[in-house]
Amino acid sequence: MAHQWNRYTVGVCYYPEHWPEEMWQEDLRRMLANGITVVRIAEFAWSLCEPREGEFTFDYFRRFLDLCGHCGMKVIFGTPTATPPAWLTHKYPEVLNSTMEGTLYRHGGRRHYNYNSPTYRRLCSRIVEKIAEAYGQHPAIVGWQIDNELNCETDEFYSQADGEAFRQYLRKKFGTLENLNRALGTTFWNQTYTDWAELDVPRLTPGTGRNPHMMVEYIRFVSESAISFCEMQAAILRRYRKPGDFITTNGLFASIDNHRMTREALDVYTHDTYPNFAYGLDNVSPEGDLRDRWAALKLIQTRSICPHFGIMEQQSGANGWVNRLEAPAPRPGQMILWGMQSVAHGADYVSFFRWRTCTMGTEIYWHGILDYDSRDNRKLAEVKRFAGMLEKLAPVCGADYTAAFAILEDYDNEWDTRLDAWHRRVYQASKDGLFEATAREHLPYDLVYIDQPDAAEKLQRYPVVVYPHPVMMDQRRADLLRAYVENGGTLLIGCRSGYKDLTGQCVMLPQPGLLQPLTATDVRDFTFTTFAEPESFATMGETRLESPVFNDILTPLEGAQVLATYGESYYKGQAALVENRLGKGRVLHWGSVFTAKNAPALLAAAGVKPLFAGIADAPWSVELALREKDGKRWLFLLNYLAAEADVTLHAPARSMETGEALSGRITLPPYGTLVVELD
Amino acid sequence: MAHQWNRYTVGVCYYPEHWPEEMWQEDLRRMLANGITVVRIAEFAWSLCEPREGEFTFDYFRRFLDLCGHCGMKVIFGTPTATPPAWLTHKYPEVLNSTMEGTLYRHGGRRHYNYNSPTYRRLCSRIVEKIAEAYGQHPAIVGWQIDNELNCETDEFYSQADGEAFRQYLRKKFGTLENLNRALGTTFWNQTYTDWAELDVPRLTPGTGRNPHMMVEYIRFVSESAISFCEMQAAILRRYRKPGDFITTNGLFASIDNHRMTREALDVYTHDTYPNFAYGLDNVSPEGDLRDRWAALKLIQTRSICPHFGIMEQQSGANGWVNRLEAPAPRPGQMILWGMQSVAHGADYVSFFRWRTCTMGTEIYWHGILDYDSRDNRKLAEVKRFAGMLEKLAPVCGADYTAAFAILEDYDNEWDTRLDAWHRRVYQASKDGLFEATAREHLPYDLVYIDQPDAAEKLQRYPVVVYPHPVMMDQRRADLLRAYVENGGTLLIGCRSGYKDLTGQCVMLPQPGLLQPLTATDVRDFTFTTFAEPESFATMGETRLESPVFNDILTPLEGAQVLATYGESYYKGQAALVENRLGKGRVLHWGSVFTAKNAPALLAAAGVKPLFAGIADAPWSVELALREKDGKRWLFLLNYLAAEADVTLHAPARSMETGEALSGRITLPPYGTLVVELD
Amino acid sequence: MAHQWNRYTVGVCYYPEHWPEEMWQEDLRRMLANGITVVRIAEFAWSLCEPREGEFTFDYFRRFLDLCGHCGMKVIFGTPTATPPAWLTHKYPEVLNSTMEGTLYRHGGRRHYNYNSPTYRRLCSRIVEKIAEAYGQHPAIVGWQIDNELNCETDEFYSQADGEAFRQYLRKKFGTLENLNRALGTTFWNQTYTDWAELDVPRLTPGTGRNPHMMVEYIRFVSESAISFCEMQAAILRRYRKPGDFITTNGLFASIDNHRMTREALDVYTHDTYPNFAYGLDNVSPEGDLRDRWAALKLIQTRSICPHFGIMEQQSGANGWVNRLEAPAPRPGQMILWGMQSVAHGADYVSFFRWRTCTMGTEIYWHGILDYDSRDNRKLAEVKRFAGMLEKLAPVCGADYTAAFAILEDYDNEWDTRLDAWHRRVYQASKDGLFEATAREHLPYDLVYIDQPDAAEKLQRYPVVVYPHPVMMDQRRADLLRAYVENGGTLLIGCRSGYKDLTGQCVMLPQPGLLQPLTATDVRDFTFTTFAEPESFATMGETRLESPVFNDILTPLEGAQVLATYGESYYKGQAALVENRLGKGRVLHWGSVFTAKNAPALLAAAGVKPLFAGIADAPWSVELALREKDGKRWLFLLNYLAAEADVTLHAPARSMETGEALSGRITLPPYGTLVVELD
Repeated sequence: MAHQWNRYTVGVCYYPEHWPEEMWQEDLRRMLANGITVVRIAEFAWSLCEPREGEFTFDYFRRFLDLCGHCGMKVIFGTPTATPPAWLTHKYPEVLNSTMEGTLYRHGGRRHYNYNSPTYRRLCSRIVEKIAEAYGQHPAIVGWQIDNELNCETDEFYSQADGEAFRQYLRKKFGTLENLNRALGTTFWNQTYTDWAELDVPRLTPGTGRNPHMMVEYIRFVSESAISFCEMQAAILRRYRKPGDFITTNGLFASIDNHRMTREALDVYTHDTYPNFAYGLDNVSPEGDLRDRWAALKLIQTRSICPHFGIMEQQSGANGWVNRLEAPAPRPGQMILWGMQSVAHGADYVSFFRWRTCTMGTEIYWHGILDYDSRDNRKLAEVKRFAGMLEKLAPVCGADYTAAFAILEDYDNEWDTRLDAWHRRVYQASKDGLFEATAREHLPYDLVYIDQPDAAEKLQRYPVVVYPHPVMMDQRRADLLRAYVENGGTLLIGCRSGYKDLTGQCVMLPQPGLLQPLTATDVRDFTFTTFAEPESFATMGETRLESPVFNDILTPLEGAQVLATYGESYYKGQAALVENRLGKGRVLHWGSVFTAKNAPALLAAAGVKPLFAGIADAPWSVELALREKDGKRWLFLLNYLAAEADVTLHAPARSMETGEALSGRITLPPYGTLVVELD
Repeated sequence: MAHQWNRYTVGVCYYPEHWPEEMWQEDLRRMLANGITVVRIAEFAWSLCEPREGEFTFDYFRRFLDLCGHCGMKVIFGTPTATPPAWLTHKYPEVLNSTMEGTLYRHGGRRHYNYNSPTYRRLCSRIVEKIAEAYGQHPAIVGWQIDNELNCETDEFYSQADGEAFRQYLRKKFGTLENLNRALGTTFWNQTYTDWAELDVPRLTPGTGRNPHMMVEYIRFVSESAISFCEMQAAILRRYRKPGDFITTNGLFASIDNHRMTREALDVYTHDTYPNFAYGLDNVSPEGDLRDRWAALKLIQTRSICPHFGIMEQQSGANGWVNRLEAPAPRPGQMILWGMQSVAHGADYVSFFRWRTCTMGTEIYWHGILDYDSRDNRKLAEVKRFAGMLEKLAPVCGADYTAAFAILEDYDNEWDTRLDAWHRRVYQASKDGLFEATAREHLPYDLVYIDQPDAAEKLQRYPVVVYPHPVMMDQRRADLLRAYVENGGTLLIGCRSGYKDLTGQCVMLPQPGLLQPLTATDVRDFTFTTFAEPESFATMGETRLESPVFNDILTPLEGAQVLATYGESYYKGQAALVENRLGKGRVLHWGSVFTAKNAPALLAAAGVKPLFAGIADAPWSVELALREKDGKRWLFLLNYLAAEADVTLHAPARSMETGEALSGRITLPPYGTLVVELD
Repeated sequence: MAHQWNRYTVGVCYYPEHWPEEMWQEDLRRMLANGITVVRIAEFAWSLCEPREGEFTFDYFRRFLDLCGHCGMKVIFGTPTATPPAWLTHKYPEVLNSTMEGTLYRHGGRRHYNYNSPTYRRLCSRIVEKIAEAYGQHPAIVGWQIDNELNCETDEFYSQADGEAFRQYLRKKFGTLENLNRALGTTFWNQTYTDWAELDVPRLTPGTGRNPHMMVEYIRFVSESAISFCEMQAAILRRYRKPGDFITTNGLFASIDNHRMTREALDVYTHDTYPNFAYGLDNVSPEGDLRDRWAALKLIQTRSICPHFGIMEQQSGANGWVNRLEAPAPRPGQMILWGMQSVAHGADYVSFFRWRTCTMGTEIYWHGILDYDSRDNRKLAEVKRFAGMLEKLAPVCGADYTAAFAILEDYDNEWDTRLDAWHRRVYQASKDGLFEATAREHLPYDLVYIDQPDAAEKLQRYPVVVYPHPVMMDQRRADLLRAYVENGGTLLIGCRSGYKDLTGQCVMLPQPGLLQPLTATDVRDFTFTTFAEPESFATMGETRLESPVFNDILTPLEGAQVLATYGESYYKGQAALVENRLGKGRVLHWGSVFTAKNAPALLAAAGVKPLFAGIADAPWSVELALREKDGKRWLFLLNYLAAEADVTLHAPARSMETGEALSGRITLPPYGTLVVELD
């Protein structure tokens, strides 16, 4: 049974072990006085519970928990497996992860372990059990966090234990070497395996030319390793926790099927959000304004895993490791803005990272609410105000996010882009392009993961779904899409669809492969666009649609209708956008990627309707989000600009914070937020 | 006796093992129907002949060869040593190459082996012999390819076997440690060796400061290793092949004396040409238009090895590994254009890579003629048309390429540029500059390698030779150049000439060292140009010659005449270009590098004559090539632009394709080609 | 007792072993004829003294020394420990340094050893003693150089011997694991050590997140290792040298407390200066003109170590390793210009590198005075003229450099910037900004190292001192600064002051921490500036002060006065510059970094007075330096431009070179220098 938060709650990450014990009580008092009612603790504190191998002591955190119990603070307790003690890695170097080149990661950072060492599994299992046994019944505890940010820092594993586990994974999955060789296309370049012992995790090759089908399996294996490591801990915690206490883990990192992990091991999902990565001095985000707003990309993804989620780490100061990530401090108002962005997308629990900036170690610049000097400051004041705002928002808790349409994603295709540079080009272009287009046009979308068991059911909620580049396709998914369309849905897909199966091998079918019966198109020619020619485009009536990066040249099959044709190029006049009616629905096939400029017209052609028509008008710098529950609707307005923003409410509304009736033109202050109940 | 193709032939690379055996017959039929009469096969198929150590089976390819024999397809059979089986590298890791840091390259790519492991030599020798024995007399076979693209991916070897072989190489070359220490200048930084056991391949040093003389020897050693690996296979194949079947290898990669390898081990040389590397999205080619035309750089080099050569892999689609090289598809016409470029430069055999794009592995984006869906397409139609055009060109086969002059190259100097950044700057600048200048001015040139035994004889064919930067010089070469000049030739050299001997040590002579008797110049001062000063230039009469990168400040010696002097600089007014008459000829010494802008005037000063005067006028986007045989002359016109190009024929001519008489102004279509016989 | 040069001396670096012995005599004769009276030799010649382990021979250099003695040449003899023989590293690989990843650096370069291997210490100690014993009493010798450029190429050490030595260093420094854990903040990320055996040099971690406090200790350890390696040799040399012969080492490299090394092990410090690094083609110097002038940055630092120092290597030609650093030749006049820059800053000994360009090895492009051909040239003529000029400068020798103010530095803060990217941003910006500002404004400064024992005494000489970013602070230093101010000094500090202690941990005090009693400021908010907002600035009266990179938002405490406030930003109107009067002096706290543009106004506000008012006016391209001794004053004028420069002398003066009386407007030739005695 999934955990459901029953009220908006503000929390904070706290490290009792970083501060003199004398400070605990006053810290807790100040938190509570400022609206913070939960602390997350202990996720890097193995040595405090097992200072030497097999010597356990639980007094330290019991004193802290008792204090919490005394003053009414609730606690999320973390398992400490992300940072093994020095004694452990020194005695058992086999627990360490290594680089592809074979250099072991050593003590001095974090996440230097591997998931597959039997030794590490044994020692982790023991410490988790000891901790669960010691604190599981403590009344202050309300939840458990497993490890910390699985797959953060690196999601590649090359230890000997990983090599052995990967061999077992392959053996289990493929059964015979014949199956394995066929699935991995080992005939190419004479890679045929003749003994299981020859298999290993993919290692260094000349020119970095690794078997792409093996790489996809390898990422699946990494995901499985992380999930099974998480499940191992969850199973223990389940035995010792009190009824009602939830189990979670935090962050949203690559090479994990986070949906499956949540489904199989967790009660609820929590995410860590740091919008200001966008403005670090070594920043590599896409150019443009309001880049902090792009944090929504991961919030949308989180919502797809768990509609009512938590933010375990909400940015509360400048972020930076001591050796990299030089970021400016959040401007006044931005903490609330970003916190409200999380809430707008479905967060019911918002826990700021961290109470007070650490004075030592790698994260002295990962600033907390309080600065080193511990005094009250503008950030604490924002937290207090935010907590007050959330109190006024109580009716919204548990309301559903309303999307204009859905975008389809799946882990197979995402993981295929890791090695496949051709796939990555189109995947990344459309991911960025669709986000920017829908942000600019106020067309919020949901993500649906087609590889998850509940995909068919979820799809039915949306009149239009976009599957930008379903490169890898199988019959089950094709059938699912067909059923969706035949039942009246509209499916919009882009270039490069359906030319691979789930092993990553190309299918010997006319493209888009298994999707051809849906699209009624035939791709007889295709090419990257080139900087040696004028910019590629297509025309749909009067509309010019840019068509950069890649072009599938479409031939419409019987029954299909050409909506747009390519401009100046060797395929001028050929089809770029083709519509096929199927059952009660439609399939649109677009021969290129989705961009900020072309997506609005393409989405309109697919029938995506303005969500806020009759509700509100706002510049694109203001994010709009609509939440609904029990017939009530709430509108979130979030201004990402340092300047005032004018919005217009088309219908009467009421401010949740002040109760004031609002309508017509309203001015949001710089970085200002507003939540209104719509009549 | 060198192999001589007797007619233009179109081939294709084919991998029977990548496709169901049921497809073979239809594939062969379609090839033949489209003008393809030869297939290259089997070069990555070790496991199909030796699935387990010592277990040999030859049925598979015999079935394929028999089918070829049956339907009239000819076969080039590849030895499979570029991709050792998994069982081999697993059991014998000593056969693997490693990075300089010592990480072994593992199974999963290709070319991960080293040339010097006795184990690998033994196992390669056995498989080649078994294959040669099994198929050597098969009537379908017409030739053999050894390995695949020797030194592709990497040309550096650091395995233990390489260390040992290098030690032996040095011992054999130098005899005594005293000789070795002198030749390698080990006195510097106390590098003196006192025991052969102290020697190893050059490994990691602080600041990457490796002994440059050792590095040159190391590259010579790598070349020897590759050649002897090739020779080992050639010797076996010679024992088993049928009379008339040729032995070759393919590609043109660094750190191999390809001339010597061809002379000593091969019957004919074949090259792999992919002009569209120029337009990959991660492209690093020089800026500017028509970059695909630069593929000629390697065709000229190939012609110097073997005037009538083959193209084993001619680009037939977009190229790309799955993990890199995102290139656009060839535009309609470009396959023929590029194929005709190969033919213009001397290719008599043109084998497209590959029949059908592979559906698995690293090269799913190294597109073949057919796409994954195997249907007829525009590329197959181009192949067919190309084959038809070649039939009409039959009289041209075996004709000689006509050059306006020759450029001198040698492996010693090329290899010296690998470590020597000063040498590399001038070498690369002039290589690029001369190519662009001669392309723009329609002054095609031949390459002559002065370090090869036939250099003196070859030189006599050219009234003018340019030796851009003969940094390394010895008396034998200086004598050879003097003889060439005294017999009436004109020699043009650039800056930095003659300051090193063949060990890479600097000579204690006034520069240009051993060449001073030829140039009658004295370099008393020299410098890189600097971005802190205005652009360097010289003036020759009214002509401004840019003189970037490096300037030798020349003092003319007795008898020499100053043709140009430097402009604004601290050496303003001093000689930049000096002419010396010697015997019946002349030597011109230019104090800087050759660029696209200065080379035309410098070549004119050296007496290079327009080759196409009275024949044709064409824009630089059209490549002109002249071929001669038995008193007949043919002109190739190749249009690299996506637009029409106007050319003028000054004399009557006849189209080889249509037989039509042509003269005056002619319009080539976009990417169009034309071959005419001149009256 | 420190060595004091008693007259200006010109030397040269010479390698007898690089040339046939027959050339020695003529080389020495030509040196002497051109004003060179000292040669530095033998620093890479271990094998010539110990060709095989334990076999010693000293004839070679004795012949050279005797020849020197005979012709009147003096010698600085180098110990050969920077380049161990091949037999040594082959037999004892434990003496090698390695990369962080564990790859050993091998024979073939230089400085591939580690300082801590007991084996290497033993063998170095023996060869130094044998050499000292053999040559210590030779009359030609005047001094000794230890090793060569300690910490050049790399200043990171990862061998096993370093791991062990670091463990011992930590044990000695901290005594108990409890102390160590507290000082290194190991509570963070569970890094607590429970056994000394768990400690090692910092190695690879995921995401490169290494413990910053450990890193600072590690650099301190590297410095100690280098110094103790140097001391070991110095102790031996002291036992064998003749009275009056000095001991030195050369260069100025990172991760060494050069002040302490000089104080504890050396008699005098010598520096290597190559101003033309600024114009290498792979140059990464700051943009702008006259970058060679930036060599002064290291000369100022050298002067702080040793006011009357030597230049062991003064650039005499283009510099470059064979594999990198492609630099133009010095223009005519630049050798004297740069040599005179060294003299102006306090060099009494100037030794050019090198006599003749080496014809072999990595440094064939590290050009000497003579070229490979050994003929007289313009560079030799410059050396001769330079030597003549120095003779005329005899009265200036030993005069003090006069600075307008002082800048405070310390090794703790410098080393903290190695890992700490936030600290590095402000440190580097202000270092560059202050140098450029003071160069443009003719405000020469001295460096004072506050972490050295003589800091308090030195400070008293300056009415104004700038401590740009005293990030790390302790009570002793704070007291010292307070005493300086209370005695009448003016202290100017920038942003980010005082927030760390000497372990690198942040202090839980209002910023600027221990400096708050001095500044009377409180930093309640702070942030990097961001490219998402307009450029940050402050206004002081009418003056606009740019305030890039980082802003501390200052709150003035009681008694403090606001001198400037921030402009457009969220902290608009808040204090950017605050003055506090304390005792007889003042403290100015500036909330940002120092730049070329804002520093002039900030220095003026601090009371820095124009040093050359009433003496001379000159454009910024002319460096002015004032030297004083026994009531006499000399002015150096150095023109870094390729064009003439006009300067004005406001008072009568006399040219030291010509004796001519000079006043009013004077024209310096391109790259010209002039030294005048002021009346």
